[in-house]
Order: sequence, then C-alpha cells, then structure tokens
Amino acid sequence: MGHNISEKTKGVFIIAATPFQDNGDIDFDSIDRLVEFYIEKGVSGITILGMMGEAQKLNPDESTAVMERVLSRVDSRVPVIVGVSNPGMGNLVTLSHNAMNLGAAGVMVAPFAAQKTETALYNYYESVCLALGPDVPLCYQDFPLATGVNMSVDCFLRMVRDFEQLVMLKHEDWPGLPKLSQIRKKEQDDGSRRVSILCGNGGLYLPQELARGADGAMTGFAYPEMLVQVCSLFHSGDVDAAEDLFDLYLPVVRHEQQPGYGLAVRKEILRRRGAISTALTRAPGPKLSKEDHVDLDRLLARLESRLN
Amino acid sequence: MGHNISEKTKGVFIIAATPFQDNGDIDFDSIDRLVEFYIEKGVSGITILGMMGEAQKLNPDESTAVMERVLSRVDSRVPVIVGVSNPGMGNLVTLSHNAMNLGAAGVMVAPFAAQKTETALYNYYESVCLALGPDVPLCYQDFPLATGVNMSVDCFLRMVRDFEQLVMLKHEDWPGLPKLSQIRKKEQDDGSRRVSILCGNGGLYLPQELARGADGAMTGFAYPEMLVQVCSLFHSGDVDAAEDLFDLYLPVVRHEQQPGYGLAVRKEILRRRGAISTALTRAPGPKLSKEDHVDLDRLLARLESRLN
Amino acid sequence: MGHNISEKTKGVFIIAATPFQDNGDIDFDSIDRLVEFYIEKGVSGITILGMMGEAQKLNPDESTAVMERVLSRVDSRVPVIVGVSNPGMGNLVTLSHNAMNLGAAGVMVAPFAAQKTETALYNYYESVCLALGPDVPLCYQDFPLATGVNMSVDCFLRMVRDFEQLVMLKHEDWPGLPKLSQIRKKEQDDGSRRVSILCGNGGLYLPQELARGADGAMTGFAYPEMLVQVCSLFHSGDVDAAEDLFDLYLPVVRHEQQPGYGLAVRKEILRRRGAISTALTRAPGPKLSKEDHVDLDRLLARLESRLN
Amino acid sequence: MGHNISEKTKGVFIIAATPFQDNGDIDFDSIDRLVEFYIEKGVSGITILGMMGEAQKLNPDESTAVMERVLSRVDSRVPVIVGVSNPGMGNLVTLSHNAMNLGAAGVMVAPFAAQKTETALYNYYESVCLALGPDVPLCYQDFPLATGVNMSVDCFLRMVRDFEQLVMLKHEDWPGLPKLSQIRKKEQDDGSRRVSILCGNGGLYLPQELARGADGAMTGFAYPEMLVQVCSLFHSGDVDAAEDLFDLYLPVVRHEQQPGYGLAVRKEILRRRGAISTALTRAPGPKLSKEDHVDLDRLLARLESRLN
Repeated sequence: MGHNISEKTKGVFIIAATPFQDNGDIDFDSIDRLVEFYIEKGVSGITILGMMGEAQKLNPDESTAVMERVLSRVDSRVPVIVGVSNPGMGNLVTLSHNAMNLGAAGVMVAPFAAQKTETALYNYYESVCLALGPDVPLCYQDFPLATGVNMSVDCFLRMVRDFEQLVMLKHEDWPGLPKLSQIRKKEQDDGSRRVSILCGNGGLYLPQELARGADGAMTGFAYPEMLVQVCSLFHSGDVDAAEDLFDLYLPVVRHEQQPGYGLAVRKEILRRRGAISTALTRAPGPKLSKEDHVDLDRLLARLESRLN
Repeated sequence: MGHNISEKTKGVFIIAATPFQDNGDIDFDSIDRLVEFYIEKGVSGITILGMMGEAQKLNPDESTAVMERVLSRVDSRVPVIVGVSNPGMGNLVTLSHNAMNLGAAGVMVAPFAAQKTETALYNYYESVCLALGPDVPLCYQDFPLATGVNMSVDCFLRMVRDFEQLVMLKHEDWPGLPKLSQIRKKEQDDGSRRVSILCGNGGLYLPQELARGADGAMTGFAYPEMLVQVCSLFHSGDVDAAEDLFDLYLPVVRHEQQPGYGLAVRKEILRRRGAISTALTRAPGPKLSKEDHVDLDRLLARLESRLN
Repeated sequence: MGHNISEKTKGVFIIAATPFQDNGDIDFDSIDRLVEFYIEKGVSGITILGMMGEAQKLNPDESTAVMERVLSRVDSRVPVIVGVSNPGMGNLVTLSHNAMNLGAAGVMVAPFAAQKTETALYNYYESVCLALGPDVPLCYQDFPLATGVNMSVDCFLRMVRDFEQLVMLKHEDWPGLPKLSQIRKKEQDDGSRRVSILCGNGGLYLPQELARGADGAMTGFAYPEMLVQVCSLFHSGDVDAAEDLFDLYLPVVRHEQQPGYGLAVRKEILRRRGAISTALTRAPGPKLSKEDHVDLDRLLARLESRLN
Repeated sequence: MGHNISEKTKGVFIIAATPFQDNGDIDFDSIDRLVEFYIEKGVSGITILGMMGEAQKLNPDESTAVMERVLSRVDSRVPVIVGVSNPGMGNLVTLSHNAMNLGAAGVMVAPFAAQKTETALYNYYESVCLALGPDVPLCYQDFPLATGVNMSVDCFLRMVRDFEQLVMLKHEDWPGLPKLSQIRKKEQDDGSRRVSILCGNGGLYLPQELARGADGAMTGFAYPEMLVQVCSLFHSGDVDAAEDLFDLYLPVVRHEQQPGYGLAVRKEILRRRGAISTALTRAPGPKLSKEDHVDLDRLLARLESRLN
C-alpha cells in the first residue's frame, strides 16, 4: 500500500464535488470527467465524500458507488482520501474498510458536537482508531465552524503521540494561523512526530499557511491549478511568485469560500469549465439566482482578463 | 388508510427504543418483545426511528428492517409514526414512502440547523410536503435543544394553514408551556385548524401540558403505563388523580429525561422489565457505570415501594 | 477572614434573586427582607449577582449597591459569594476586589464562549487567579448550557492542582452525575486536593448529587428550607428521609428549573411567600401569563396539601 | 438634528477602535489622533462602542468618557453612531439617551441569543423603539456569526414597516449577498421604505455588496481610505476602477477580517500608521506573536509595493 497517505504527504488534495444529473441522480460520466479535470490540473490527491461533496445527502449505496467510480477512474494515479464521518461507529468502520479495500489511501474523520470535552474527543478518536485497525491511515478534520468542536494544540499532539495511524491534519480552524504555528513549534520542541498538515477554508489563507509550515491544501477551489502552482512555487522557494499568483485568484477564492452558498458557486464554475454537466446541488441545497450569476460573470471575467 | 394520524390523534405515542444484541446488531426478537410490551401497557401508538431510537446510527437497510419488523409485529393494532429526518430530501422521501407502503400512519420530520430563519424553515417544510405528496401525514418535531432551530407560534400556524398534511406537533421546546398555550389560543382566535399536540421532553411536564391543551405524550419513558394512565385519568376529568400518579413516577421521569445519558437509563429499565435483552446503545453512546447503577437501583426501589 | 469559602465549605448557598420595584429600580427594602428570609430558612451562605440574580442587567453602580446592601444586612452571619463574571478582566477584578473589601467570602467566575479549547480555558482561569491575587477564593461555575463552554474532569483537576485559590465548583453541567463521581474518584486516586462541590440546576438532582459526593447545593429554589433540610438529613445519615422530603417538592423544583421562564416562577413564589414585594424581572425578561399563574396556583396548592 | 442618520445615509462609517495605554487605561490622546486620522481619510461617519471597539470590556463610566471624547473631538464634522447593545433595556436606554444628548447621530443595536424566534426578535426591537422614543434613529446590526440570531428578509421588512426610526441595516450576515439583493427587491416590490444598508464583515465583499444595492460600508478596516475611494468610485459610476482598487487591498482585508484575531491585526496596523500609540487589546483579548508579525510585515510590504 505504498500510496497510502502518511506524515510525508504534501501538495494539493482537491475536495471533489459530487456531480448530479438534473434529476438529482449521481452523474457518473461527470465523475469521470471531473477526475480527469483534477488530475490534469496537477493535484497530488483527491478527497471524496467530504462535507463539500454532499456526502450527507447520499445513501450508503450511492456513497459506495461514488467511491468505486472515483477509485476505478483514478486507477492509482493519485491517492484518494475518503470522508467517513458518521454518527455511528459501525457505519464509519464499514465505509472505511470498503474504501480501503477499493484502494483508498486513507480516511478522514471529523468529530461530532457530542464530543463536548477534549477528554471525550480523545476517547472518540481512540475508539475510531481501535475500530478501524492500525492499517487505516487517518486524517483529522478540524473544522469547528461546521462541527462545533474545538480542539487545542495540546489535545491534538496527545492524539498524534498515542495514535500512530493519525498522520494528517486537515486544518480549517478559523482563525487558524496561530494554531498552525503552535503545532509546528510544539512538535519540534517535544521531538514528536511531524504530521502532514493540509489546509482548508477554501484556500483563503494558503500563502500564510505554507509559510507557517503547512504541507499543502485540502480544499475544493474550482481552479485547482492555482492551488497546485502556489504550492509548487512555494516549495521551490519562489515565495513571492506563489503569492502573486494567489492574489490574482483571491477575489474568486474569497467568493467561493462563503459557507453553504460557496458550493453552488464552485459547482457552477466547474460546470462552466466543462468539468461537470450541471451545477445542481441536492435539495435542500444552495442555488444561484440571476443576481448571483451576474456577480460570478463579473468576477470570472475579471480573473480571465488578469490571467491574460 | 383509516388509521393514519390526523388532527384528532390523541393519547400516548411511545418513542420506541431500538434494541441491539451484545455485538451491536439489531435484536429482532427484542423488537417483537418490546412491541408487545408497549401494546400491553396500553399505548395509543408507537413512534420509531426517532432520535432516541438511535436512528442516525442505523444504515438504511437496517432502518428498513426495523420498520418492517415493527410494522409487521404491530399488525395494525396501533398506528406507527416513523422518524424520517434526513439531510437529503431524496433520502427523506424514500424512507417516508417505504414507511407508508409498509403501513406507517405518518412521518415525523425535525428541521436542520441549516434552516436559519423562519422563512427558510417554512420553505423547507413546504418542499418536504411537496416531495412527500399530500397523502403522507406529517408531524413537526419541535426540539430546539437538539436541532438548534427555534420556531415561533406564528410560523407554526402559518405552516398549519398552508400545509394540510401537517396534522401534528411533537412539542418539545423547552421551556414550552407558554408556547403550548399560545398555539391553542391563536388557533381558536384565528379559527384555524386545531392540530394534534403530543408532548416530549421525557414527559417531565405532562400534567401541565395536558392542562394547557396537549392531546397526549410522545416520549419514550420506560414505564409507558404511567403516561397512558395519566392521559386517561386526565381526559376522564380526574385531574388530581392524574397528577398524583404522575408525581409518584416523577423522580424516575426526571432521572431518565437527562439528554444523552437518559437513553442508557431508559434502555436499562426496559431491560430490567424484560422488554429487551440488553441495554446496549450503539457506539458512540452512553453507558451506565457502577455508580449509575447504584442511583438507578435506589430510584427504582423507591418507586416500587411507593407503588405498593 | 475566617469566613471565606474554602475546600471545606458545605451546605446550601442560596442564589439570591435581585428584587426590583415596579418601576424597575432596585428594591432595597426587599433585599433586606429577602436576606432575612434566606437566613431564617437556615442557608449556610448566599450567592449574589449570579445569572439568576439578573447581574447582567445591573450597571456597576447598582451591582455595588446590591453588594453593599446584602453584605451589610447579612452582617457576617453567613458567608456571601459574589458572581463577578465579566467579558473584561479589568472589570472582573475591580468588582472582585470591591466585593472582598466589603466582606465577601469569595467570588464566582463562569467562562466565556471565547474560551474555545481547554487550553484557552485553563489560561483564562490562570489569568483570573493572577489578576485577583491569591487571597481571593474562587468558585468555578460549570454551566455549559448557559456558557457554551464544556470542561473535562481532567481539565478541572489540572486547574485545582495549579490554582490554590480555586476551592469550589458550582456544578451544573447537564447531565452531570457521572462527572461528579469522576471528580471525586480522580481526586482520591491522584491524592489531589478535594474541593467543595455545590450543585446547581435548580436542585433537580440534589439527592443523587449528595450521594455522589457533593457537599451541598448552590441554587435559588424558592423554598430554601427544603434544600437545607435535605442536605442536613443527608449529612446526618438519614438518606431516605432526605429523599422523601425532596420528592415532596420535586414537582415545584422541576417547574422552577425551566431556564429563563423559571426565574419568573421563582420570583413569584418569593413574592407570594412575602420575601420580596414584586415579582418583576428587568426587561427583557420573562413574565407570567394568566395560564402560568394557574399552573403555579395548582402546583403550590398541591405542595401545601402534601406538607400538611 | 440635521446630521442624524437616516434612510439616505451613505458612504463609509468607520468602526472606531478603542485605543488603550500600555496599562490598559483608555488612551484619550490616541482617541483624538484616531478621530483625525479617520476624518482625514475621508470617512462619512464614525461608529463607536461596537464589538470591535471592545465596548463590552469598558465600564459605563469609560463608555461615557469615550463617547464624550469622540463626540467633542469630531465636533459635528461627521455623524457618529453609538453601539448600545446591552442585556438590560434600562442600560441600553440610558446609554442611548446619553449618546444622543452628547450629539450622536443614532444608535446601533444587535439582538441577543435570547431572541430565539422572529416573533421574539420583532417584539424585542419594538420594545427598544418604544423605550428609546421616536427621536432616536436606530441601526439594526445583523451579525448572526457573533449573536447567534438569524433574521429573515421578511422579518426585517416587517420591522422597517412598523418602526419608523429603524433607518439603517448594518449588514453582516454571512453569506449575505443574496439577502442584500432580496431586501432591495422586496422593498421595491412592496413599495416599502428603502433603508440605508452599510456593510460589515470587514469589507470582504464590498464591491459585490455595492453592486447589489448597499449604500456603503460600516467596518473598521485599518485603511479607511480604500473603503472611501471604493465607495466613491462606485457611486461615480467607475465600477471597474472601484474593484481594481479594492483588489489591491484584498489580501490585507482578508487577513484583518479574521474574527477575534483580526482586531489585533487592525490595531497593529493603526499603530504602525501612527493613528494610535499601542496596539494593546484589553484582556482577555488577542495578541500578535512573532509569527503573526512576520505575516503582517510581509502583507503590508506587498501592499506598499503594489500601491507605489
């Protein structure tokens, strides 16, 4: 399983949208197209069935079907992480083992509001690790705005110390820059394991996050090539060029990062770029109005003119 | 479908626990036993796949299997309401139509935190009604402590006015006594449809709620016979006897009503009463410690001695 | 300052209501009357300017005036704890030092939602202790339903170990029985300081809490004599008599414990008992309707008849 | 009072920081300097004692002193709005009347989490208006991320219809672009009063908001001249120039907009620009670390080089 995610994983793991047909059914042709689109843009990996992938609106058969289609289309060209958060441990484990058997590179788990203290949080991830078994690499999704669960640096590092399979942090605490620096500093001070940190929040702070020790991004921005080039310029030492490129896209990044609403924007951009056939989100979900399209037309026209 | 729930529904709809085996699998024998237990105690109906039924920890196949087993065992002796809340409208509708086809009497839907304004709330229930079709009777579960969604009396009555299939309110806003009185008063003042109101919150305020116009209870208290007798005494006009009986059980009602923790108490009492085989809740879920059992032993012993 | 609160403090610290006149001004005569009422009923101490004391609706001059009046009327007959929670550390410290100078026995501080992790929580209480100075005994108010801040047993015991002046826990996590047992067990296992634990939540679980190691109650139930006698019977070993007495009042305890609404109930009972002149709460605040009075009349009549 | 805010108010109302000395006392000299700084940069008005002004950490005497100093220094050159949100109606009214007597142009009120339904919200603002009297112009601060209170377009327009003194919306719902469009559309469709809408959220969406009908900004960005020029270019019809200018500052806007943390960034920029003497926020408050300064140095250097 050489392609599993690990502490060394870096680059851009794109959060894949889940494309639907106009009738709300999963659009498998668009899945194929989207996978090719992402790989063509140079992503290092793909994350599926995350919150932005509308995973909570799929039934388990659909989740499995999406997983199968993506993994078979990817065909080991890049590693694939599967979001498996679930209120029931049994369902979480079943989905994870399915994913790993189909060739996933690891799973991502966010906490639930029921984990009200850091002791409860630690205990929950301990049970998750035990239930998954040691061969399933784990990414912690730290997204308090969505989960309601906050985690301290100390709590995270305790988990890293005790759970070997916890190899990655999806960092989307907000504001999160100081936390990122603290994790990197404490890891070093304590001589503890340095995990992979990929950043979310739509990429809104990517240059700052890279400067503070992030290994890349895990988000779904509809221009993955920007994320890829920013990371690659940064890692090659051309920090200014990285940020210059980022700033060109920042008006669109900021527009797409709006919670909820942003998913409709993202899918519409993917549609306009030919990556998926329709921008539909499953009900109840956001939809763009005429005014929303006007905004978007303008923002994208401005981006185009700047890129040329 | 003469046994569908309607505005006239009254009495006690017991929220059914979902019994598991020690290995976490669904315990179908215990389902049978539990159904008989509930019916023997005189309930007017049964609600399954609610929050206290750990519905969110079942997969859809299990949900269907539980539904089938309960409905087949009940065999039309009492109406059965099915909890169908789901982040995806498609899944909600599929589950609802399955339920109705199998003989359910109606479905119960709670809002999601995503319904952030009353306009959004109204629109959501409008789509639910449209998607279900007019033949599926609907119960609104008003449980802000769990859902994070608050609804005004005005908003509820607007929905009642506009959505004919909305025939019942599961009332568990907290505190909720003034709201109950206001609904009953406004219904009358506006000459609008008087819906059925069954009360939750573990039954903690049942005598006061009946006095303010509730039609009964919808909760899972492990001594359903108390709920049944209290409602029946109250409706026969013997208000003091109803409350005297209630007060005997109140120490246990209050103990079982604790959120989260209370489910472990409830299942343990059902186990002690022979209604189910083990008290296990699915992980992650509450479990009773030695100290918790000591409390419970004492509370139940005191109840027994008072009843005799 | 021999009467300061300490780890040995036990009994009932009644949370004092703040009485107003019909025009909303503070009713100092009623303060005198209320103090005498509480002392007459046998309370071990009084807590003022808590959430149920509408402290957040007083201005600082009023807070000081209330403090002065209560402390001068109490005249060292019982210790007085002052609630000093405040978004600004400066204001918190000023109020605390005023309180101690006027003869208070300690201060109570609840966390803010801004303390999002247990590290932040620990750091906040560390700054509070530093800013107060070591001579101000501190009570931690653990009320997640109101503050949004959850604290683990481990986090609390770390604070107890490191902050000597932290001598008391106001326990109102909900459900909180397991937490109480865990604190008592870990204190013993670790050989750490055993702090005083007084329980809130309107007294709803008092017998169970005493059995699990609580030292008493800190709540504002309008029949303080019940809390006092229950604690005293329990501590004298007559556990059954304690719980029998408690159960007589339980219907009213449960009614008064409803958040927000319950304050209007409590003040109305205090008014009916002659302890204060009007039941007014400051706007925006709860008010009893005609239906609410009907409930209360009935509950109190039933209580009276049971007591006689 | 010709300079009171009204439905016609437009432009940039800068949210003023409250400057402190190193010992935490209010720095009145910096207040003077800051006022001159803001006016020099061309703001249309100033808003004081808002959330970003750390109002909740001042005591009432300090609030009054800040108000007096700002109003006297401004000396009617621009209108001043005062944030008066307060859990107690009495305190809110006192502060408001003080403000108006000292020459304020209106007051701003945000709802509390206690306003759990839209009916409660409406009733609260009705009481606020009654208590303030009709001569105090009111701005509604719609900031659900901070207050926990969501308000629908319908609810807002009902308040506008019924409360004449409600003349302004501080728009910072997030995402909020569709809401802004809906308000402007419904106002027109219903022929109702068109209120002033000034946008917050740190200015992050200002060009889009202006295009959708906002009248300006109310936020505290540390380069007020950008906000002023963007609004002025936009209103003069040069929409592209407005957005070009905005985009130059966007990296800093986005950095400063981070909740909590952003206040420390903002104050540090104001300090570097000579507008205030120290960047201190009152405890407990955010502080910049060495890494945070590195970020900021870099972002500001990049801004400078782009502006030249």
